[in-house]
Amino acid sequence: MSVRVAVAGASGYAGGELLRLLLAHPGVKIGALTGNSNAGQLLGSLQPHLVPLAERVLEPTTIEVLAGHDVVFLALPHGQSAAVAEQLGPEALVVDMGADHRLADAGDWETFYGSPHAGTWPYGLPELPGGRAALEGSKRIAVPGCYPTAVSLALFPAYTAGLAEAEAVIVAASGTSGAGKAAKPHLLGSEVMGSMSPYGVGGVHRHTPEMIQNLSAVAGERVSVSFTPTLAPMPRGILATCTAKARPGVTAAAVRTAYEKAFADEPFVRLLPEGQWPATASVHGSNAVQVQVAYDGAAERIIAISAIDNLTKGTAGGALQSMNIALGLDESTGLTTIGVAP
Amino acid sequence: MSVRVAVAGASGYAGGELLRLLLAHPGVKIGALTGNSNAGQLLGSLQPHLVPLAERVLEPTTIEVLAGHDVVFLALPHGQSAAVAEQLGPEALVVDMGADHRLADAGDWETFYGSPHAGTWPYGLPELPGGRAALEGSKRIAVPGCYPTAVSLALFPAYTAGLAEAEAVIVAASGTSGAGKAAKPHLLGSEVMGSMSPYGVGGVHRHTPEMIQNLSAVAGERVSVSFTPTLAPMPRGILATCTAKARPGVTAAAVRTAYEKAFADEPFVRLLPEGQWPATASVHGSNAVQVQVAYDGAAERIIAISAIDNLTKGTAGGALQSMNIALGLDESTGLTTIGVAP
Amino acid sequence: MSVRVAVAGASGYAGGELLRLLLAHPGVKIGALTGNSNAGQLLGSLQPHLVPLAERVLEPTTIEVLAGHDVVFLALPHGQSAAVAEQLGPEALVVDMGADHRLADAGDWETFYGSPHAGTWPYGLPELPGGRAALEGSKRIAVPGCYPTAVSLALFPAYTAGLAEAEAVIVAASGTSGAGKAAKPHLLGSEVMGSMSPYGVGGVHRHTPEMIQNLSAVAGERVSVSFTPTLAPMPRGILATCTAKARPGVTAAAVRTAYEKAFADEPFVRLLPEGQWPATASVHGSNAVQVQVAYDGAAERIIAISAIDNLTKGTAGGALQSMNIALGLDESTGLTTIGVAP
Amino acid sequence: MSVRVAVAGASGYAGGELLRLLLAHPGVKIGALTGNSNAGQLLGSLQPHLVPLAERVLEPTTIEVLAGHDVVFLALPHGQSAAVAEQLGPEALVVDMGADHRLADAGDWETFYGSPHAGTWPYGLPELPGGRAALEGSKRIAVPGCYPTAVSLALFPAYTAGLAEAEAVIVAASGTSGAGKAAKPHLLGSEVMGSMSPYGVGGVHRHTPEMIQNLSAVAGERVSVSFTPTLAPMPRGILATCTAKARPGVTAAAVRTAYEKAFADEPFVRLLPEGQWPATASVHGSNAVQVQVAYDGAAERIIAISAIDNLTKGTAGGALQSMNIALGLDESTGLTTIGVAP
Repeated sequence: MSVRVAVAGASGYAGGELLRLLLAHPGVKIGALTGNSNAGQLLGSLQPHLVPLAERVLEPTTIEVLAGHDVVFLALPHGQSAAVAEQLGPEALVVDMGADHRLADAGDWETFYGSPHAGTWPYGLPELPGGRAALEGSKRIAVPGCYPTAVSLALFPAYTAGLAEAEAVIVAASGTSGAGKAAKPHLLGSEVMGSMSPYGVGGVHRHTPEMIQNLSAVAGERVSVSFTPTLAPMPRGILATCTAKARPGVTAAAVRTAYEKAFADEPFVRLLPEGQWPATASVHGSNAVQVQVAYDGAAERIIAISAIDNLTKGTAGGALQSMNIALGLDESTGLTTIGVAP
Repeated sequence: MSVRVAVAGASGYAGGELLRLLLAHPGVKIGALTGNSNAGQLLGSLQPHLVPLAERVLEPTTIEVLAGHDVVFLALPHGQSAAVAEQLGPEALVVDMGADHRLADAGDWETFYGSPHAGTWPYGLPELPGGRAALEGSKRIAVPGCYPTAVSLALFPAYTAGLAEAEAVIVAASGTSGAGKAAKPHLLGSEVMGSMSPYGVGGVHRHTPEMIQNLSAVAGERVSVSFTPTLAPMPRGILATCTAKARPGVTAAAVRTAYEKAFADEPFVRLLPEGQWPATASVHGSNAVQVQVAYDGAAERIIAISAIDNLTKGTAGGALQSMNIALGLDESTGLTTIGVAP
Repeated sequence: MSVRVAVAGASGYAGGELLRLLLAHPGVKIGALTGNSNAGQLLGSLQPHLVPLAERVLEPTTIEVLAGHDVVFLALPHGQSAAVAEQLGPEALVVDMGADHRLADAGDWETFYGSPHAGTWPYGLPELPGGRAALEGSKRIAVPGCYPTAVSLALFPAYTAGLAEAEAVIVAASGTSGAGKAAKPHLLGSEVMGSMSPYGVGGVHRHTPEMIQNLSAVAGERVSVSFTPTLAPMPRGILATCTAKARPGVTAAAVRTAYEKAFADEPFVRLLPEGQWPATASVHGSNAVQVQVAYDGAAERIIAISAIDNLTKGTAGGALQSMNIALGLDESTGLTTIGVAP
Repeated sequence: MSVRVAVAGASGYAGGELLRLLLAHPGVKIGALTGNSNAGQLLGSLQPHLVPLAERVLEPTTIEVLAGHDVVFLALPHGQSAAVAEQLGPEALVVDMGADHRLADAGDWETFYGSPHAGTWPYGLPELPGGRAALEGSKRIAVPGCYPTAVSLALFPAYTAGLAEAEAVIVAASGTSGAGKAAKPHLLGSEVMGSMSPYGVGGVHRHTPEMIQNLSAVAGERVSVSFTPTLAPMPRGILATCTAKARPGVTAAAVRTAYEKAFADEPFVRLLPEGQWPATASVHGSNAVQVQVAYDGAAERIIAISAIDNLTKGTAGGALQSMNIALGLDESTGLTTIGVAP
């Protein structure tokens, strides 16, 4: 079996990473590649690392170009997916790598994105409780944000096991590719090399309601989230330091057990042996999630830390993993847990 | 007036940074420079950026070499300062850039450092309430740790103004020079470039009791601290994201006012204009502290973020600033708020 | 068919990269993994990115452990391969990733390495004229050095086409992984980030005679080589700027034609379209070689520039490619031209 | 004495670096600061590291604003300096940090810059033979390009001593700040971190004729230059590897002697002890030039390598050094040889 796949937004970082993975997927045939400002250009000049596709020409992102594919990945700016998806019809699997269909609450969407809510699609984080069932056979997938992926996977076992209070404090560091390929002065190499800086501080980052949604679902009550993202001097990777107040009576052993149980059968999440901590370099280019957890008895907090590649598990790899499930393929097809290090 | 200064531990990063600053200090004459394994070597081969001292030869760290100076800076491994300081006599100003004399609580010292407590010296963080008075005329100074410097300065105004509950959650990213110059595999460039990773997670980092000590002093009650340090792919800089539960009734305006007031007359701390956030690149090589603060009403937390150069304000610059105060010099002598950027 | 493979030196960067590639090679079964100082340790603690091998324990590098494999890769320090290889017997394919068997001239070996010459094995650079024939069916392979790989591939077309004088000037920048995983102060992240520096200047780098050997073979006369390596602030990658005096009458068109012809059928070497230049990021983690060439009419020099990943095409990928040829497998098995970028 | 200084182009990297240095210059008063697209903005938002100037507002770059200063620095795009300079009148010292007045040959200018030649001003590289004399009392200074500074200082002693043939091959690596602050996709942090790449290959880089001009002047004959610049993953610094064919009979000792003699009295150029090589980190933020030289007897080439900070000695520091000479101040005023490392 081979499914024909189109990628809308093939010139960006998410689109490029998706193509890198699709090229290694044995059940996929790469069809139309589209861009907007870059339509007409050779992919080789825009994504010089994708050698087998170097002679491909980007087409405009129109319904005519995208129609007729079994799967359409949308790596478009926020707010543009819904219009395209509507026209694609119900038989195509549409995987939205943007934010449009992640949030269940229309009010949250409007508050954080300032436009009408496009609706909610099955959420592409299979490792969450009930995550796989929601994706099987689905024709629509909302790929999670990169930060919510790292954070939800790090913290949900503490909530499913009833170990944490409904109050999380999270600080995450992301590589610069998370900010996309549009040229902005503060993303210049001269500015970011040698520098750490925060942004979107104080609850205003758009991934905050998505984290609250995920953690509240597993906790069974509304979880308050203080989230601070920071920009780190590296191209890829997210390190998420996630802490939550421990419930009375929690022990280090109980925390360890909960995490071991939560990830025992997960193909991509690896709870590290005690004493070893995640590093983004170890998951570079892979779909793996490294997790470690500690219990700070003095501060009475659980500290769960995860490392992912923001472009792979955080975006394109997560999208492909969800596609595999939706299509009934082996979940790991075309994906690896092996990082490119050092 | 010119004071004669010796530096014990001149081959390391802290010692090198101190020498860089001393070379620009108009009231100082650089005397003996010592090292242990490097005694006998030219400083030019160990610190090639310190051109004016290139022909200086490192001497062994002995009392004979260090005696006869007005000021002796000790940039020695933890646990080695006390023995040297005792022999130096009471007339020399001894500035301990190690940890030995920072903690007031002997039990804390023994728990975190595993050796007998050497005693407590006046603490070299002038910006804390009462900080300058404690240093004026003193003959002994304990230079704060780099993380406690960044964290205490970011958070104390929230406590002095009574805005925060006695519970702080802190995640900080440090450049690799904070880990020193000893060659260890995990500090190799190949390992750290492109990677973020945590260490000392769960309340075990040695700077934790120092933060608790400082914040508790200003809060007037014991402040619980959850502290997670991370290693960032950059040579210098600390970005500290410090959050604390807000007390009932706190407003964004009250937070802003408290911070404006706290730093109004500080020569080295700059509260950034609203909307602008600290970046470690902006304080590279300078003694400045950039601070910004936000109030997250949904999470009911105050988020205060600071950026310092871990080697300058976080170690050698802070040491020099305290020396200036102890000697009755202008506090800013030989120090700058101007960073080397980009 | 599945060949059983042992890797001696599995804890280093070359060994780790080889394992990363072997895990994706469909015709290979990974047998013994050995180390010396690390014997007895879990691979997961030494190479945390190689998740599927995390539970493997390193064995000591002895003939007993290595015997009984179809292929033995030696990623050992220089001078240690010969003794191991002798004991392995003639039926095993031995692939030496060290320098011991690269040089044909015993005098060169002794001059540059200071020990007796171990002999010369078929040279694992298939793209050189006659390169594949030398490897087919061979039971011994000498994997080229990383710099000679980048340089020989960039320059040989100019010599085979008779366009260049026998005098090359080469400056190359390498990522730090080329210097290995042993902890040395000048390789600390604090030292290399933000810094470019040369080493082995003036014809003393050990890869120089290997370059002379390769280029002289294709030129049919002894080629003089001035080679300067530099250390760049990145973990991986080599960018080799290779220039040679042009022979009288050379034109830009003739140069372009020669390079197009030389690489027309190569699976891993890509001559970029005119106007596009190599970047090490584009070949990160891949076995690809990006090449571009220009003719500077004013200086009368040909400038050929190549980018490789020093650990992949420059070491482990090149080794695997040569193994494939020696075993009669498709040359590209288990290897990719697709880089991990950005 | 205090001279009043204006800076046109204060929002860019060259302008920012100049201001950083001017703030430490005791004989200078900073007057008007201008920008074009950024006029009206606070300097604190554009150059957050320049704390003492944070409240300054950028003015438009007009003759009215720039008039009435003793010294006017022009950090403008190429081709814009001449028009401004003409209007400033002969009594102001005008220091052009752009390219407009560097080249003596109008034909070279037109070939490489494509516009009419604006004329030639005294050249601000005091270390070249006759360099200081040309600047003393001058009212116009053309600041050299960053690459020509690094290259000319590394190679001129070989020519003044008659040791080198008139043929140089140069490869240099530059930090990204050399490409300026305008946001371009290939300069994004995501693109440059982890990557080395060349540009302007084959004699087309605009700094080539400037190098030829400088080296030919000292050689007394036209020197052919093959120059390849590369972009390195660091914000600052140039490492220039400069090689020239040695004349018959040259020895390593003769080369060493020539270099020792050339730099014996230079305040900013440091010929390193034998065995030690330049590193850009060592000159970070300083006006120093580190030089080392070797003679490769086998290749019969002299290899001279220099490291500078492209923004300091390569641009703003060099400009200030020349200003000091022109004004009759001590040449080193406001400048340092001490780098900020690590």
